Amino acid sequence: MSETWRPEVIQALRRIAPAERVLTDDLDLHVHAYDGTPLLFHPPRAVVVIDSAEQIPPILQLAHQHQFKVIPRGSGSGLSGGSVPVEDAVVLNLTRLNRIIELDEANLTAMVEPGVITQTLHTEVEARGLFYPPDPGSSKICTLGGNVAENSGGLRGLKYGVTKDYVLGLEVVLPNGEVIWSGNKCVKDAAGYDLKHVFIGSEGTLGIFTRILLKLIPKPQARKTMVAYFHSMRAAAEAVSGIIAAHVIPATLEFLDNVTMRCVEDYAHLGLKLDYGALLLIEVDGHPVVVDEEAEKVMQVCRDHQAAEFALAADDAEAVRMAAARRVAFTALARMRPTTILEDATVPRSNVPEMIDVIEECARKYQLQIGTFGHAGDGNLHPTFLVDERDADELARVEHAFGDIFDGALRLGGTITGEHGTGTVKMPFLARQYNDPTLAMMRTLKAVLDPEEILNPGKVLQPGRRFGEGLLERPEEALGVA
Amino acid sequence: MSETWRPEVIQALRRIAPAERVLTDDLDLHVHAYDGTPLLFHPPRAVVVIDSAEQIPPILQLAHQHQFKVIPRGSGSGLSGGSVPVEDAVVLNLTRLNRIIELDEANLTAMVEPGVITQTLHTEVEARGLFYPPDPGSSKICTLGGNVAENSGGLRGLKYGVTKDYVLGLEVVLPNGEVIWSGNKCVKDAAGYDLKHVFIGSEGTLGIFTRILLKLIPKPQARKTMVAYFHSMRAAAEAVSGIIAAHVIPATLEFLDNVTMRCVEDYAHLGLKLDYGALLLIEVDGHPVVVDEEAEKVMQVCRDHQAAEFALAADDAEAVRMAAARRVAFTALARMRPTTILEDATVPRSNVPEMIDVIEECARKYQLQIGTFGHAGDGNLHPTFLVDERDADELARVEHAFGDIFDGALRLGGTITGEHGTGTVKMPFLARQYNDPTLAMMRTLKAVLDPEEILNPGKVLQPGRRFGEGLLERPEEALGVA
Repeated sequence: MSETWRPEVIQALRRIAPAERVLTDDLDLHVHAYDGTPLLFHPPRAVVVIDSAEQIPPILQLAHQHQFKVIPRGSGSGLSGGSVPVEDAVVLNLTRLNRIIELDEANLTAMVEPGVITQTLHTEVEARGLFYPPDPGSSKICTLGGNVAENSGGLRGLKYGVTKDYVLGLEVVLPNGEVIWSGNKCVKDAAGYDLKHVFIGSEGTLGIFTRILLKLIPKPQARKTMVAYFHSMRAAAEAVSGIIAAHVIPATLEFLDNVTMRCVEDYAHLGLKLDYGALLLIEVDGHPVVVDEEAEKVMQVCRDHQAAEFALAADDAEAVRMAAARRVAFTALARMRPTTILEDATVPRSNVPEMIDVIEECARKYQLQIGTFGHAGDGNLHPTFLVDERDADELARVEHAFGDIFDGALRLGGTITGEHGTGTVKMPFLARQYNDPTLAMMRTLKAVLDPEEILNPGKVLQPGRRFGEGLLERPEEALGVA
Repeated sequence: MSETWRPEVIQALRRIAPAERVLTDDLDLHVHAYDGTPLLFHPPRAVVVIDSAEQIPPILQLAHQHQFKVIPRGSGSGLSGGSVPVEDAVVLNLTRLNRIIELDEANLTAMVEPGVITQTLHTEVEARGLFYPPDPGSSKICTLGGNVAENSGGLRGLKYGVTKDYVLGLEVVLPNGEVIWSGNKCVKDAAGYDLKHVFIGSEGTLGIFTRILLKLIPKPQARKTMVAYFHSMRAAAEAVSGIIAAHVIPATLEFLDNVTMRCVEDYAHLGLKLDYGALLLIEVDGHPVVVDEEAEKVMQVCRDHQAAEFALAADDAEAVRMAAARRVAFTALARMRPTTILEDATVPRSNVPEMIDVIEECARKYQLQIGTFGHAGDGNLHPTFLVDERDADELARVEHAFGDIFDGALRLGGTITGEHGTGTVKMPFLARQYNDPTLAMMRTLKAVLDPEEILNPGKVLQPGRRFGEGLLERPEEALGVA
């Protein structure tokens, strides 16, 4: 029972937030002990279900006073362990801060609280003929605060970009409890440093968002959905390059390999054709005339690349059915074996064929079952390892395979994580992507904003050199006074 | 003669860069003593015309050793004094680092050196059917490095965003001489903190760019240019809102007030109709069918808002002639009186009519001649003060008017600078836009990256509280050890 953990802290928290929102029961702690990342579990000491943004600064001040850790959390759908607690942590559950404060149709902006579900915003703005493009796979359950903290991507990244491309402003509670605001409704703003980008993608380690100003765009008037089958992943990947070379930028350009297709068919019975090596799902959107032309070009490119079969959705219902193959891919794969580890190594789109070779070589070399699907158009692949966490030898081989895959992605000009974030699971690999001064600067940012490591510690960055250290150790010299 | 200034520094610089590229003649120093900002002039002690990026780290190390200041500079077309020297400064002229290193048509990216002229890149990529949208008014002379340092906007901000929306990666020499790289060709990257955005818009105060990776998009296939006259600025501004409300996002949506129209006509003899209160220049681009439809909608909205006259360019030559009215606006205004001070207060686009009222009230209240033109679509106005710098009383009134205009912009949800940057001229006003913790965080960023204030000091931020100070002064308390 955690009721015994530091009663003075629990009492103080209950003076800041309503008593019934400060949770210490084992069951409540258990459901806040993990996120969407496999193999991670650590219960917090307490959970505060935040009712009002005003509660956050005093909790952070209390955390400094009593030296406990604070972990901000949305829906807990993260895939890199970013919201999994550490020792002596209090989780701030932000899902009740879920108001859409304003939809400004004149300026095409939405002001939201961090706990708004992404799909809720989609529905609200689309009802007004507007569009919020970022569309993470978890959009039905994830929160916009979590999206900003992870700089979430999703299915529309190629044409529309990712979350950071839609954040116009952020209200942030800093680790010391001070509140800053960065940004506004202006398309252009060159005043001072652009602080909001320090926090976008910082995975809850630098500040807690309390208000988010998002950019909207007019909703595309039409959409066409297509499916093409190819004999091999390489052929599919080459068709993807051909589509871009034809200057068609589809809203969605996704692929499934044969392993994934089989799992999806077994799960969802969509009538997929399992004799082929790969499936491409392509959606073009925009003006109806443009959509027709682009669909025609896509079809031509697929033909030129020896697509085995090609189908254009006749209506919305068929389009939804086609898109379902991609939407359920993770769920379908997850049924196959006890443990599903979803990776998101990402490369420049022209290197997708080479990256697929790297993944296939890993499966052979380490005798692992890997289903690969993902965002072919933006080079964001999801090799998905189907394993059993009770098999230590298999897990060790997975660990080796990760190393090979990340090294491959970096060799091909990519990144160890396209959209899932670093969290705890990618943390050991970050030093392969960045040189020492780059990592030192990241650590310096963390150190100056959160010198006592109160906020979501043990995420993103491993210990190491930072610029601030010299300042602390030899202030006279560092300040040029000597 | 500056040859007498610290010969040991000059000699050391001549060991790092070719001797003939280390300039100390008065004439050379004179031409590096100012930028595009009126009233600012301060010659450096020396200028190094950088031949190779490799020369930059040792110069910064030398600057620490010998305690001189380093000012990075592109074409010197800045409008907030960002590249104007301070005491004991060595200017690094980066215009010879002007290679387009790579145009990657498969991944739609361009890798460039900082000294590439913006229009040179436009020409190169458009010849390949690609498009680099940021289009500052100075694009014929300004450099891409300067654009990134200022987060430059321009005429296409409304539809296409600003420079930061196109920066995929940055190589930065930090003030301490270390080199970091942030970003890659991937649309998605969630690894670690997104450091490049700390530097975009940092106005040469945090680091010097040596390579820039830019995002390109397919070139719009067609364009239509229109001009509409209105009886008043307010009517024009309301038409702008009407266009956005019709979900048409023009590539360009610019306006000129009557003062500006008269100056332009006097200068360029374009046949403008001077009886009207305002002129809107509208360009829609994209697929030919969409362009036709959008032009039709724009015409309808202008009619609904009582446009006095409306004209659609019959061909490219006429389009260029129409656009010229806007392109020459600044030059035309600059002829009228000895000193031209161009402002760029910016508001959410729905508040443009109110902002115009603020500017007109200023002209009356302070008896000033103000011509206003600018980017109506993105709320980025350029009230241009036509004054005589030898008239101290007039200059004092301008200073008061600035205060009113910035306060007005901020009251209307805007910013003190949309695209010109803070530099020295907006520095005193920054504290009106941001609260104390926000400013403290900006100062902290500067302090940890450049504790000795070697790089472009005296820009952007006035002295004041920063987070690092507490750490230095009271480490026990700040670290919670007490």
